[in-house]
Amino acid sequence: MTKRVFVTGAAGFIGSNTVRTLAESGWTVVGIGLGGQEEAKHLRELGLHAWFETSVTLDALWRVESEAGSPDAIIHCAGSGSVAYSMTQPRQDFLGNVNTTLDILEFVRQSSGRIAVVVPSSAAVYGVVHQLPISEDAPLHPISPYGTHKIVMEMLCKSYAKQWGIPVCVVRLFSVYGAGLRKQLLWDACCKATAGTFSFFGTGAEIRDWLHVRDAARLLADAINFSSPDCPVLNGGSGRGISIREILTTVGNLWNPKVTPTFSGEARSGDPAHYIADVSRLNARGYVPSVILDQGLAEYVEWFRAEVGA
Amino acid sequence: MTKRVFVTGAAGFIGSNTVRTLAESGWTVVGIGLGGQEEAKHLRELGLHAWFETSVTLDALWRVESEAGSPDAIIHCAGSGSVAYSMTQPRQDFLGNVNTTLDILEFVRQSSGRIAVVVPSSAAVYGVVHQLPISEDAPLHPISPYGTHKIVMEMLCKSYAKQWGIPVCVVRLFSVYGAGLRKQLLWDACCKATAGTFSFFGTGAEIRDWLHVRDAARLLADAINFSSPDCPVLNGGSGRGISIREILTTVGNLWNPKVTPTFSGEARSGDPAHYIADVSRLNARGYVPSVILDQGLAEYVEWFRAEVGA
Repeated sequence: MTKRVFVTGAAGFIGSNTVRTLAESGWTVVGIGLGGQEEAKHLRELGLHAWFETSVTLDALWRVESEAGSPDAIIHCAGSGSVAYSMTQPRQDFLGNVNTTLDILEFVRQSSGRIAVVVPSSAAVYGVVHQLPISEDAPLHPISPYGTHKIVMEMLCKSYAKQWGIPVCVVRLFSVYGAGLRKQLLWDACCKATAGTFSFFGTGAEIRDWLHVRDAARLLADAINFSSPDCPVLNGGSGRGISIREILTTVGNLWNPKVTPTFSGEARSGDPAHYIADVSRLNARGYVPSVILDQGLAEYVEWFRAEVGA
Repeated sequence: MTKRVFVTGAAGFIGSNTVRTLAESGWTVVGIGLGGQEEAKHLRELGLHAWFETSVTLDALWRVESEAGSPDAIIHCAGSGSVAYSMTQPRQDFLGNVNTTLDILEFVRQSSGRIAVVVPSSAAVYGVVHQLPISEDAPLHPISPYGTHKIVMEMLCKSYAKQWGIPVCVVRLFSVYGAGLRKQLLWDACCKATAGTFSFFGTGAEIRDWLHVRDAARLLADAINFSSPDCPVLNGGSGRGISIREILTTVGNLWNPKVTPTFSGEARSGDPAHYIADVSRLNARGYVPSVILDQGLAEYVEWFRAEVGA
């Protein structure tokens, strides 16, 4: 018998990749989220079984269950993923990230079945970092409302897991990238390269840990098996730190004609300087990312040219 | 010109005492909460200026402001104060405690004025305690959803205070008691003494730090002046640890005829063993509790007899 999984935010960047990965692995995938009929059609092509166009609320979850059947797992990809949004719309960011998590956990608590819950968190929970690579046990000093809200999501997961024996796994995703992402550094870079002004905020020396969205999706799918009432928290990264300058230089070299990035020299408020994930906990569970960065970047640039035009 | 303060949960135990204290100090006190017309009448006798029968939501706060005027301070006494409730109704406990705090902070953020916010938290945030007395810097290991939710409230306070310069003060109240409290240990004790069965759950050796509600109310009022964008967190206790057996022996001796407490010997899940507040941070700000425990207990027993009958 195939198993059923609910994916919230299924029309989103990480959500839609997670739908594809799960469908390919034989799961019956039920999508919940906002995206419209066109997105729903696209998700069906990726293997989605059923689509529910709705925000994630307790009532909506009961309705989805009554129409699509009880899930064996829920992967909660819904919610904002933007530090900047949390600074202008902190209440909406909180409601979208935290209250949806609360309702999923409450749905599972009130359900008779034993449902595994996977909650993507973010490296933003670490905030000010004093030691690289960053272990999951590092102190949390978030520097944005988004980082705080992600910690709150994790605390709710731990509280529900411990109090009611719900199997949960939290994955702190680092810099997830890949074809289809119409925001953040690579999107900006391709837009700027197209416009002919390849200049950037920051120093270029900032280090990030990049994880391709197919690897992130596979990790979230694997995390169903990692879930337990102990609520393990895992870094979702590659364990490799790459500077922004290095990334943008690679993208610039892929352009035709080639472009070279320049930097403003100022740091952006709310963004930390250097991030590299300690992935020993992840590796101990047998997970290793598979997409090579240069390949992932080339694929992104190719997608951008095909979709947006050069 | 008198200053205006909103007190949420004004009809509650701590809220109503806070209304009286603030009114006596010359504040124009606006009450927000649930309680009905009888409670509103009682609050007016305590000096309440205006009453709004409503849950605490962002919309309600805008309405109160438009009708009663912009506040100089908000003391957020609304929300559940029960560990047991959080174990059976975790979602409602979260919404009542955390989302109301979110809406107050958001109201202040969106207001042009500079409004001081005082948020009562709880010693339940400490959970498992390894060192007495408990400093505000002690690690937080909550053992109930209630304790987790109170930490979340505190995190929101810190996030908003830091990000938008809002003056906030968090007060972690220990065991607040006093005439009018129709639940918890003293209420149970008086009910049991009335019924003639003075036996209790637990060992009797559990230590608590008791703070009379008049002292708690005065502390919350003082905390308006302690508020700052650094969001100070202060223990609200006496600094004196008293065993449950000692408390109940005192209550039993006040009964006529005297009764002596007996104990089951089992510990209650979700309750910590020993709590004493480190009050050095509180004392450094010039605050010292004034109600002597024996006097407070005698007053409670007298109130119980007058209200409930013996």
